Amino acid sequence: MIPPAVLLPVLVLSLQAQDVHAYVHAHEKPILASFTQFLAIPNVASDKANIGRNSEWIVAELNRRGIKPELLDVPNAPKVVFARIDVPGATRTMTFYAHYDGQPVEPAKWTDPPFQPTFHGDRLFARSASDDKAPIQALLTALDAGVKPRWNIRFFFEGEEEAGSPHLPAIIEKYRDLLKTDLWLVCDGPVDQSRKQQIYFGARGVTKVDLTIYGPNRELHSGHYGNWAPNPAMMLARLLASMKDDDGRVLIEGFYDGIAPFSATEKKALADAPANDAALMHEMGLARTEGAGRKLDELITQPSLNVQGLGSASVGETSRNVIPSTAVAEIDMRLVKGIDYNRQVERLMEHIRKQGYFITDRDPDLDMRLTHPKIAKVVRHEGYNAARTSMDLPVSRQVIGTLEKARGPLVAMPTLGGSVPLYLFTDALQTPAIGIPIANHDNNQHSSNENIRLQNLWDGIETLAALLNMETQP
Amino acid sequence: MIPPAVLLPVLVLSLQAQDVHAYVHAHEKPILASFTQFLAIPNVASDKANIGRNSEWIVAELNRRGIKPELLDVPNAPKVVFARIDVPGATRTMTFYAHYDGQPVEPAKWTDPPFQPTFHGDRLFARSASDDKAPIQALLTALDAGVKPRWNIRFFFEGEEEAGSPHLPAIIEKYRDLLKTDLWLVCDGPVDQSRKQQIYFGARGVTKVDLTIYGPNRELHSGHYGNWAPNPAMMLARLLASMKDDDGRVLIEGFYDGIAPFSATEKKALADAPANDAALMHEMGLARTEGAGRKLDELITQPSLNVQGLGSASVGETSRNVIPSTAVAEIDMRLVKGIDYNRQVERLMEHIRKQGYFITDRDPDLDMRLTHPKIAKVVRHEGYNAARTSMDLPVSRQVIGTLEKARGPLVAMPTLGGSVPLYLFTDALQTPAIGIPIANHDNNQHSSNENIRLQNLWDGIETLAALLNMETQP
Repeated sequence: MIPPAVLLPVLVLSLQAQDVHAYVHAHEKPILASFTQFLAIPNVASDKANIGRNSEWIVAELNRRGIKPELLDVPNAPKVVFARIDVPGATRTMTFYAHYDGQPVEPAKWTDPPFQPTFHGDRLFARSASDDKAPIQALLTALDAGVKPRWNIRFFFEGEEEAGSPHLPAIIEKYRDLLKTDLWLVCDGPVDQSRKQQIYFGARGVTKVDLTIYGPNRELHSGHYGNWAPNPAMMLARLLASMKDDDGRVLIEGFYDGIAPFSATEKKALADAPANDAALMHEMGLARTEGAGRKLDELITQPSLNVQGLGSASVGETSRNVIPSTAVAEIDMRLVKGIDYNRQVERLMEHIRKQGYFITDRDPDLDMRLTHPKIAKVVRHEGYNAARTSMDLPVSRQVIGTLEKARGPLVAMPTLGGSVPLYLFTDALQTPAIGIPIANHDNNQHSSNENIRLQNLWDGIETLAALLNMETQP
Repeated sequence: MIPPAVLLPVLVLSLQAQDVHAYVHAHEKPILASFTQFLAIPNVASDKANIGRNSEWIVAELNRRGIKPELLDVPNAPKVVFARIDVPGATRTMTFYAHYDGQPVEPAKWTDPPFQPTFHGDRLFARSASDDKAPIQALLTALDAGVKPRWNIRFFFEGEEEAGSPHLPAIIEKYRDLLKTDLWLVCDGPVDQSRKQQIYFGARGVTKVDLTIYGPNRELHSGHYGNWAPNPAMMLARLLASMKDDDGRVLIEGFYDGIAPFSATEKKALADAPANDAALMHEMGLARTEGAGRKLDELITQPSLNVQGLGSASVGETSRNVIPSTAVAEIDMRLVKGIDYNRQVERLMEHIRKQGYFITDRDPDLDMRLTHPKIAKVVRHEGYNAARTSMDLPVSRQVIGTLEKARGPLVAMPTLGGSVPLYLFTDALQTPAIGIPIANHDNNQHSSNENIRLQNLWDGIETLAALLNMETQP
């Protein structure tokens, strides 16, 4: 049962969009009170009980504003909070996407507990302060500030993006009619490093592979067997080193084959983007970058291979003089338009085979160990492909125009370096999708001490309010 | 104040050495009761309180046997338990060395808690069941079995061998006169993999280096910065891969320079040693070994470089899509006679510099980061050099003869692959030192589920009893 859509009271809608700025700065305290309440609810995707508390919080907040949401549901998935504002006479619909789950946390690495929101300087620290609860709070505040929609509005807030959105395809399939829209606005990711408002028309795809290399079937004393028993940590080092050159170029055969070209508009947008490289290198303490001198904005339009973690035996306090028994590397790969994620994993596996490895998807038994001199376990995680919306569509030009009017010059990027499941909208639903990030780039997203710069929250409310107010015609 | 040496009661000494076997098997239960009590005392070298309980246990056991030990003491070191049995008319003295501390433990990786001794099959599992409490229990039992020393006997049990024996040089210097002896018998290490009694006349030296490679000064989102920000895990992989070839040969310049040659006797001993390689490969699940086909016994006479652990960001549950900020490898190097451990570390550091790294011994600040494209932190741990006692000395031949008479054909190795601080005896004290291991090779020493095969304990008691009974003249 889908409840009837709700019309916002006319009184609330009477404010003008340009008044949003004044509203926000007159209400900073209650906005932050609401936001810290939201951030205090733990939201690691695997924590089902707390994930449910997050969706309940959003439902209550929407109800309080007179918008009765419904919960989209498929088995084993966190519920999607879906809400509608129908505007009389409106012929077009825009849908705001955001996610209320966050990355796993290692509390020991945080200055303050990840779910105890804490202010330091100009920022608020908590898991998902940026990624991706900020847009949800910003949309709620934009409603409070009195937006005046001319398009029908939909909100779509999911709860397992950081786990790779495994049920999103099924949800979209099940609710295909309900989700009919003319435009998806994907509120995720950071703005440009220059702190200018950025929007993006595509995103890289992503997939992940866990790679385990096997040495002796138990840890061995490095004195009694060193020089004789193959060391899986060293084998892994050699294997990883074979994958990229010193400049970061991936050496896996075919890795860059099939990349879809950019249009003239997209090439110009890339060329026009601010060159933040020198400032970023200083900020991150880097005296060099990879990519043979090409700038960041260009490099993120290429596929990538990244070692996101290494582990073998122990380091630090529990380190021991052993030849490890296994060594693990977790590898994420980013995809661009034209490269299928499964195909890219197969290229990686073919490369591993070429280095002399037998590939298995389970831990080897003695028989397998004695048959194959080099064994690699490859565990493939789910993934998805890159997506792009043409910057030349009328609706693309309208979104750019609306935001430039409200926020000044934009950074319009043909693609984001990061990954959001844009392909579901652009490819499965054949609908334009545009990314509207609001978080600061230096938000420690996915790491410890995630934060949002408060100015980004304030600006983000204005950005999203401008879109909620967008004109009917381009 | 050094207490007077104690003479064992004549009654106890009246048994013959050949009765030891019968004694042991008539007393298995009380021997194991004593041993499990000893093993239940946690003995990680850094755990000062429990380390003290271990030395107290040994003191009490020696006192119970009428041998009043004394405690050798220098500031900040666990006490050495030292005990004397003076034999009227004896002109020569032998000193048994063992250590009562053990390697660090990761209880989660053990089947049973490491300090809750547990029997499975033919073995007893606990930290230090082999390394190195077994010889201490064996010596106590040999006393109970009625050994009849003809040499003066000394026991020297230290408590921080697994931490690298950092205070042992100071202790030996302080108690140089007290420690005067004609022969050190170092009871540590495993017997041959064929399960034959092994003795060794040397040991590899060892040193350790912690290597940290630096990427961006915080973890970065792998989507937004992948391909651009240098990844320290990949840099570390490339650096490690540059250190060894696929066959395990170390590529660091000068790494094999200066190795002292073996004598004809030592070469013959190496050639005569059982070739256990095929059986070991099967036991450890290995379809290949390093060393271009050379056998284990030969390879452990070479210096080695071993990656004992890797760590970067996270793997498993807490893994995240980041470019790590640092990557760590802990490297142990084994030394052979003729190669100084400090010189070997300098060769390693020179190699790291040749790969384009700036080396520091502290975490880099922003200035250092912005000055040097590649930064490696190298933390040098203490170490010591290899040592050898000539197999051609009369006392070496006498020990071999004594043990062959008691235990049958021996495996006599010019050097152990592992490291024990033999150099302190051979070089600092200019005294012959011979290694008398009793533990099984497959004891999981230094790893989880350390154990001793009970037959090795029984045999070890006979081995040590034979030495306690050794004739005055060769």
